[in-house]
Amino acid sequence: MAERLIVVGADAAGMSAASQARRRRGPDDLEILAFERGNYSSYSACGIPYFVGDVVGQVDDLVVRSPEQFRERNSIEVRVRHEVTAIDLDKGAVQVKDLDHGVETWEGYDLLMVATGATPIKPPWPGSDADGLFGVQVLDDGVAIRRVVEQQDPKRAVVVGGGYIGIEMAEAFVRRGMDVTLVEMAAQPMSTLDPDMGALVADGIRKLGVNVYLEEPVEGFETSNGRIDAVVTQQRTLPADIVVLGLGVAPNVQLAAESGVPLGPSGGVRVDRQMRTLVDAVWSAGDCAEKFHRVSRRPVVIPLGTHANKEGRVAGINIGGGYETFPGVIGTAVSKICDLEVGRTGLKESEAVDAGFQPLSVVVDSSTRAGYYPGAAPIKTKLIVEKVSGRLLGAQIIGREGAAKRIDVLATALWNEMAVDEILNMDLSYAPPFSPVWDAVLIAARKAWQEVERNLP
Amino acid sequence: MAERLIVVGADAAGMSAASQARRRRGPDDLEILAFERGNYSSYSACGIPYFVGDVVGQVDDLVVRSPEQFRERNSIEVRVRHEVTAIDLDKGAVQVKDLDHGVETWEGYDLLMVATGATPIKPPWPGSDADGLFGVQVLDDGVAIRRVVEQQDPKRAVVVGGGYIGIEMAEAFVRRGMDVTLVEMAAQPMSTLDPDMGALVADGIRKLGVNVYLEEPVEGFETSNGRIDAVVTQQRTLPADIVVLGLGVAPNVQLAAESGVPLGPSGGVRVDRQMRTLVDAVWSAGDCAEKFHRVSRRPVVIPLGTHANKEGRVAGINIGGGYETFPGVIGTAVSKICDLEVGRTGLKESEAVDAGFQPLSVVVDSSTRAGYYPGAAPIKTKLIVEKVSGRLLGAQIIGREGAAKRIDVLATALWNEMAVDEILNMDLSYAPPFSPVWDAVLIAARKAWQEVERNLP
Repeated sequence: MAERLIVVGADAAGMSAASQARRRRGPDDLEILAFERGNYSSYSACGIPYFVGDVVGQVDDLVVRSPEQFRERNSIEVRVRHEVTAIDLDKGAVQVKDLDHGVETWEGYDLLMVATGATPIKPPWPGSDADGLFGVQVLDDGVAIRRVVEQQDPKRAVVVGGGYIGIEMAEAFVRRGMDVTLVEMAAQPMSTLDPDMGALVADGIRKLGVNVYLEEPVEGFETSNGRIDAVVTQQRTLPADIVVLGLGVAPNVQLAAESGVPLGPSGGVRVDRQMRTLVDAVWSAGDCAEKFHRVSRRPVVIPLGTHANKEGRVAGINIGGGYETFPGVIGTAVSKICDLEVGRTGLKESEAVDAGFQPLSVVVDSSTRAGYYPGAAPIKTKLIVEKVSGRLLGAQIIGREGAAKRIDVLATALWNEMAVDEILNMDLSYAPPFSPVWDAVLIAARKAWQEVERNLP
Repeated sequence: MAERLIVVGADAAGMSAASQARRRRGPDDLEILAFERGNYSSYSACGIPYFVGDVVGQVDDLVVRSPEQFRERNSIEVRVRHEVTAIDLDKGAVQVKDLDHGVETWEGYDLLMVATGATPIKPPWPGSDADGLFGVQVLDDGVAIRRVVEQQDPKRAVVVGGGYIGIEMAEAFVRRGMDVTLVEMAAQPMSTLDPDMGALVADGIRKLGVNVYLEEPVEGFETSNGRIDAVVTQQRTLPADIVVLGLGVAPNVQLAAESGVPLGPSGGVRVDRQMRTLVDAVWSAGDCAEKFHRVSRRPVVIPLGTHANKEGRVAGINIGGGYETFPGVIGTAVSKICDLEVGRTGLKESEAVDAGFQPLSVVVDSSTRAGYYPGAAPIKTKLIVEKVSGRLLGAQIIGREGAAKRIDVLATALWNEMAVDEILNMDLSYAPPFSPVWDAVLIAARKAWQEVERNLP
């Protein structure tokens, strides 16, 4: 008699787990049933801004694998428009609501994968439920926003919040020819960067033609007949035909928490290295699951598809009877703002202090290619290192074409707990079309090591 | 009374050492005198093909720092067109020939830096000294070649040897509108790659419009009145107005060897971690100096500006009274052939076997961006790993824009002796404009790990 795996949430984490479990256990041994409250399975949420901006033409381009494909290729049953509304851990069953027909049923499981993702943070401000106001998390959000853009011809867009998603959406609206305003409560956009690097991002957004208002907390929205009319900040009223909230996301853990699946201190579902929750036979991965940060050594939630895919794979291997562990994260991320590339990894200055380190920082200007080679463009590299040891704690890069992927070199160095005096002598590639003879990464490490030496007692 | 440092060879290694020594010891404490037999100091030899191809317009663009600038800014005396012809280690003096005036003098030193670089391998074939036949090593070679291209309007170029330099020169001649042929003795160009990856490079060169003849050993040259007329291979005669030899370079150690500075088994000047030779007060760095390969654990010579700069820096710090060591190399290199990017690091298959490893290899096709993002281009990643442990031993990447710099990520992983099961879970950056959610590096590591697991006893 086959066991049954139920997957709650059919995107990156859930379907990576399902696919890996299927690889190791055939349909006669393991039935796999996935429920997804949205219309799509296994899609690229990171592609939404490009779909809204018409950089990507078809919504199907963002779907990695459809329910039909899962059924045919993997013998995995995916039911979209089905929301899991409760888990009975004692009985081993989930309550599922068919959103199209309103019918609720209970489905039994032997193994359960909780991959409920994250939900956009919705503020408690008046008017937050108005039409024309969107969060950006699931693919359906992207479809809805694009429909408004194409059918209602909005002229003025306001983006509330200057994180990755907010900035990418602002760029998408600029591409659509709209008048775009970005409002951010903090002094800089992209709070994952140090303020000095965030300020450069603000410059980049302004160069796109976006009106940027910083240090302007939003107080509410003006609406008429249930439709959004304007965003009201402490300083001004910004008329808007469409508003996107980029206030970040929170792990979607309500279902888990209400069912008795313990959460961790970060607010995500607590998991061990194999992605097992504290409840027998219940697994979790992706945006809803807590992660271990290898540099701060603290539990964190970081909603990124790259983690969701890796964690889902780990969970699926273990569900399938194999053995694999997830080693944790170091906070690597990258973004493209028009032709400005922004990358970061590890801890920013304040995070390093918060984690108990005594850091020092250096910022180095260099070039993406040899100075004499056509297309050489500026690249600014910031390293945060432990003051005494020179151990790399974090890095931030802002530059033009070719700049951002260098963050992966620093991420790999950080992963291996390298100090900058080791990094500066590393054998990295060099040819004039790709870097100066001292790559930006090496120059930054050299400068940082000089600072460490200068500060030695 | 100041000590005197004499530097033999005023390019990357020599002048990096001189500059670092100067930083730590002022002109009153250390006189620094550098001799360079060519016309230029401290230039980018890697830029020569771009100068010949007119991608770089002015020869001065390739000069990092001129003798005048060294004198003014660093109080370092550089004498170009001065060749050191002998070293008397007992007396602590070098014999210097003023090439313009033919005068020879002896100059005493307290400290000596041997940075004589490399020389192109010249074959013993008849006609090797003909006019119109060039090696490519020093900037003067580039100037001479460009002069011929611009003043004599050659129509047919033949490049002998399909290494980096040969290929880059072939591309330069294509840019100049010439009919270009590349002849290579081996079955594939770029012998630093495995044959399967080298074959892709051959395809790339052919797409440039270059006639490529592989497995054709050159037997000699036809000349008339001392000028090159044709390159003769075993199979055919290739008419040529200009010929470039890209047969590789050998460490230029004649001066050192004749003077009694010991060489190592690789043929380069033997040095310790501080870049000291086995002779007191004599240092060496750059193309002429032996390097430790961290993966094969063997002494090697690898003529690259990136090593020359780093080694020169290390030597200079130590000469200046500081302490620094050079950790060795792992064979990282990168090249651009039109829009094809080629990177490699570590050991290729045959090198791995030769070094005593039992390797296995995987080749993975992926994309430089998310599949749906405009501009996504193919990238082929090959990993060579230890069969039982999965430890990374080498990597090769061929692809379009954005492909090659990924080799640095693998180089950093290799440097840290990571195994592919660690690499596949690393927190590398992801955003649709930069990679699929599983970066090419991670996919390759995942595939390699599967192979390792499949082969477990």
